[in-house]
Amino acid sequence: MEKISIDQIKTWDRFYRGNFINSLSGFKSVSLIGTINAEGIPNLAIFSNIVHLGADPALIGFVNRPIEAAPHTLANIQETKSFTINHIHTTIYQQAHQTSAKYPAGCSEFEKTGLTPYFHPTILSPFVEESKIKYALSLEEIIPIKQNSTFFVIGAIHTVFLDKSIVDEDGFIYIDRANSLTSLGLDGYYKTEKIERLPYAKTNRN
Amino acid sequence: MEKISIDQIKTWDRFYRGNFINSLSGFKSVSLIGTINAEGIPNLAIFSNIVHLGADPALIGFVNRPIEAAPHTLANIQETKSFTINHIHTTIYQQAHQTSAKYPAGCSEFEKTGLTPYFHPTILSPFVEESKIKYALSLEEIIPIKQNSTFFVIGAIHTVFLDKSIVDEDGFIYIDRANSLTSLGLDGYYKTEKIERLPYAKTNRN
Repeated sequence: MEKISIDQIKTWDRFYRGNFINSLSGFKSVSLIGTINAEGIPNLAIFSNIVHLGADPALIGFVNRPIEAAPHTLANIQETKSFTINHIHTTIYQQAHQTSAKYPAGCSEFEKTGLTPYFHPTILSPFVEESKIKYALSLEEIIPIKQNSTFFVIGAIHTVFLDKSIVDEDGFIYIDRANSLTSLGLDGYYKTEKIERLPYAKTNRN
Repeated sequence: MEKISIDQIKTWDRFYRGNFINSLSGFKSVSLIGTINAEGIPNLAIFSNIVHLGADPALIGFVNRPIEAAPHTLANIQETKSFTINHIHTTIYQQAHQTSAKYPAGCSEFEKTGLTPYFHPTILSPFVEESKIKYALSLEEIIPIKQNSTFFVIGAIHTVFLDKSIVDEDGFIYIDRANSLTSLGLDGYYKTEKIERLPYAKTNRN
């Protein structure tokens, strides 16, 4: 096992360093975030740094890159207070990845990638029709991260779409049965295989 | 596909709701966080909501539950400004899960679970000896999340330990080759299988 210091890492070129540090934090909850602007132009972008914040209230957080690098999603969420999160499965991950291309403002990633927008009558932001697990959120808060000009965006879940056959008796969702993927680094896509669910850990077990 | 509203979700019992909402956000970067207090008592706890915040500077964020539910890790990080993150692989996930039992203060999860603390001479917090990918961080900031009394903890990576044979030519780390796992919900452990790495997305591709 090799020891690598941050001083060494700082000498690496930025692509090598980016791949390395992006992989180090582990497998990610990669999903597509759907938004729309005030002119009605939909936007779709892939995000991999999504975290569960709490179940009651049902809150999700995600990291948005600096505004110069990823302006549309954040601007749309600020305008409309609305966004959707759509799981990525084995047959759409290539189209999902393609949303990360730097299309100009006013250009819909749905059109460019061939993914289908689905507008629910009571929800402003578009879902991805092909996605098998998707949910809509309303903006709670955008927290600027001063260290690197990123943003931690907090949303409250208000509507979920999925096939109930993948939900266990105790509420656990077998997202692997919908072929939801996980990602690694900037560009690695992985499928998963369940090892097991473990019982609630108690102190009297060793 | 079924539509489920937050009003329905609120009527569910808290265990069902917890499992459901915890699974919804997708596969997670589950790891063990090692800390130590001023009296020298080490602490080890499993965390699944870890995100990559940026590569330059190299920053990681994680969600810490409310202080009543998970006091020791956060208190130790506040005291020492130091913590380690240790990947979980196929032969230690059961011990890793067991660290979530509510052991009293002053009790080392290393002793209780049989995982081995590794102290590097220049790093205050303990690593997990068995872990094949591990890194040490210094505290940057603790951001309170007012909506649910959780905390978003930001750390700067300063030292990494891994076997360089799993690092690709461009810096991508094949953490799957170290058998690093991903988790789902509160208690589901999954192994992964690479589908592919995709090229950088450009706008002239459809």
